[in-house]
Amino acid sequence: MTERPPHGSARPGGRTARTRTAVLTAALDELDVAGFGALTLDKLAVRSGVHVSTIRRRWRTVEGVIGDLLAQQSTTIPTPDSGGLRQDLHELASAIADFHATPRNRNLIEGIAAAAAHDPRVADIVRGAFTARTEHVTQLVQRAVARGELTADTDAKEVIAALSAPFYYRILILRGTVDARLVHTSAEAAYLAARAGAFGPPETETSCRTRKDTPHEGAPTAVLRAHA
Amino acid sequence: MTERPPHGSARPGGRTARTRTAVLTAALDELDVAGFGALTLDKLAVRSGVHVSTIRRRWRTVEGVIGDLLAQQSTTIPTPDSGGLRQDLHELASAIADFHATPRNRNLIEGIAAAAAHDPRVADIVRGAFTARTEHVTQLVQRAVARGELTADTDAKEVIAALSAPFYYRILILRGTVDARLVHTSAEAAYLAARAGAFGPPETETSCRTRKDTPHEGAPTAVLRAHA
Repeated sequence: MTERPPHGSARPGGRTARTRTAVLTAALDELDVAGFGALTLDKLAVRSGVHVSTIRRRWRTVEGVIGDLLAQQSTTIPTPDSGGLRQDLHELASAIADFHATPRNRNLIEGIAAAAAHDPRVADIVRGAFTARTEHVTQLVQRAVARGELTADTDAKEVIAALSAPFYYRILILRGTVDARLVHTSAEAAYLAARAGAFGPPETETSCRTRKDTPHEGAPTAVLRAHA
Repeated sequence: MTERPPHGSARPGGRTARTRTAVLTAALDELDVAGFGALTLDKLAVRSGVHVSTIRRRWRTVEGVIGDLLAQQSTTIPTPDSGGLRQDLHELASAIADFHATPRNRNLIEGIAAAAAHDPRVADIVRGAFTARTEHVTQLVQRAVARGELTADTDAKEVIAALSAPFYYRILILRGTVDARLVHTSAEAAYLAARAGAFGPPETETSCRTRKDTPHEGAPTAVLRAHA
């Protein structure tokens, strides 16, 4: 290989690809053992057999490795196609729960949230990975529209976000564990809200006439100001 | 004061309370200027006028300061009481959006997600603060039950979680901004799902007969194993 390939796009089977696989696998294994906070480039070097200077040259920091790992892992959750929206949403919720059932993936999610706060480059990778994944999964909603289960004006991305959000809220904010009850509730809530038209276009937002139309960006509350 | 007060419980107006106010205010001001990643104890010392050794003795790390700041800030979002569930949920969503409209609070949320990944003590503080806050806000759901808008078996905490989750998903995972559309959608989805019975007790989970009853904890998927 005479030219340096773009980050993460080496030819499959090449030496660069093997190095990437070794380092990302080592990162997952380390995340099995401990949280993101304990991860170091030296540990990755020992476990992967790749020299630490090679790792540093390619990924720069632990945050860089975690970001690349996310880009790799975010495509591993399958998109259900059961023939019915409700069942599809329950299967998707189950798949998300399965993903987070392993310490490594739970630690990965915690790690990317931490890394993104420290490194804008990681924040971009996280945004890109989840945006691409959400767009892929919207197939499930589009099929429901085609079957007549949802109206054509349903915002498919918002349906997927509504189903996914409770898992990340549980893990990152409530610091709790994902259980079967959460799987059921998140799937049912997304389904029933979608069927009831909660994800319709902005034009139909007359269902709540008392909604305030003031923009929220740049409008700090007096309450918070009083605390500052 | 002859004895050291418990962390964060000093008498109002005392020297310890003034020190806490100075340091937490300095932390919020620093979060206005830059993200959590740029925060240091030295910067907090300069801005607050409190000696860095005092800050280190009381909070140990930047993570400790951020955790304490969250405990203080998490009580600042008011609980609406408009007389109707739908309006209450829209007002709550607006209040959450207002909270996140300031860079300082957005950086605070990013900061606590990062700090909790590195420090189990902060994770405990985050869990405690959001659990207490959620329980407080469930008043809103209990009033809706009393008015007959929801059935008595509604899981009030899950209604609040469903409304809140999309904001943290947008900020921490999709790395996007909170806008009026998100306020509307999260409130409507929580309302319509609650009205349709999505947050009922586990016993009534027969609404989806095809749900898998396998536990999700400890059940890694073959797909993920193949990647590991």
